[in-house]
Amino acid sequence: MQFFEDLVVGQRQELGSFTFTAELIKAFAAEFDPQPFHLDEEAGRGSLFGGLAASGWHVGAVGMKLLVADGQRQAAEARARGETPAVWGPSPGFRELRWIKPVLAGDTIRFATAIESLRTSETRPQWGIVQARHTGTNQRDELVFSFLASAFVPRRAPAS
Amino acid sequence: MQFFEDLVVGQRQELGSFTFTAELIKAFAAEFDPQPFHLDEEAGRGSLFGGLAASGWHVGAVGMKLLVADGQRQAAEARARGETPAVWGPSPGFRELRWIKPVLAGDTIRFATAIESLRTSETRPQWGIVQARHTGTNQRDELVFSFLASAFVPRRAPAS
Repeated sequence: MQFFEDLVVGQRQELGSFTFTAELIKAFAAEFDPQPFHLDEEAGRGSLFGGLAASGWHVGAVGMKLLVADGQRQAAEARARGETPAVWGPSPGFRELRWIKPVLAGDTIRFATAIESLRTSETRPQWGIVQARHTGTNQRDELVFSFLASAFVPRRAPAS
Repeated sequence: MQFFEDLVVGQRQELGSFTFTAELIKAFAAEFDPQPFHLDEEAGRGSLFGGLAASGWHVGAVGMKLLVADGQRQAAEARARGETPAVWGPSPGFRELRWIKPVLAGDTIRFATAIESLRTSETRPQWGIVQARHTGTNQRDELVFSFLASAFVPRRAPAS
């Protein structure tokens, strides 16, 4: 994980990809979103999705999973270089979440993040606030998922 | 589930409540959001959250779970009255998702939804579009979670 001072607007990071199998789609849906088009191929085909489709919350949670894994890889690399990695803080929320196209059983989604803005926190001088656009793109290069996230990022050298 | 014509701006529906135990918080986090403050009490206490905190995606997914369960209850009641329940379509996305306060281990969150706007779809005359504010409130009556969702709702009598 990087410190606030290391981040640059426009910086893009590929987070890796994930295949939404029918089995995983149904398991998530059974626990959190048991609508027919997330649980059953036939019901999916008869819906606006046109096939067994992942819950949008599943797509979001998998994007989070890959984001955290990427941060942990970066932290391990920093430690291997003898550096102390930054520990990011929580996210106050996000805006403009869009499920643009269905994620159907068998689709492989590549997730990425790109920094849109950086600002320091007035009330918490040890933290900066980053806004980043998170996206998911399928195997046909179609954008399927997008949101604008905010997170607290520690500053290397807090203003005194 | 209700048809578009049955919905009224301002209509509020309580969706039920859910207790985020330490066990459930850690299980979700281990699969989708393995950050220390979602996995370990000590790390949570040392974070901005001040305790073991549920992943924001977990809070959202549980809200979805209660929303779907409520819809299924309504559909069962409609069938019991001899009516054909409406089958809601997918959500194109949502706006302004805010994780306002942490959801800590042991917190019980009540979820609710309130309709903010209703419009018909130009391109899909058999569907209306509802915008609803989903909220989560903890046992101290503090708002912890909020977002503005859109969903396609079937019309009882499509315009010809």
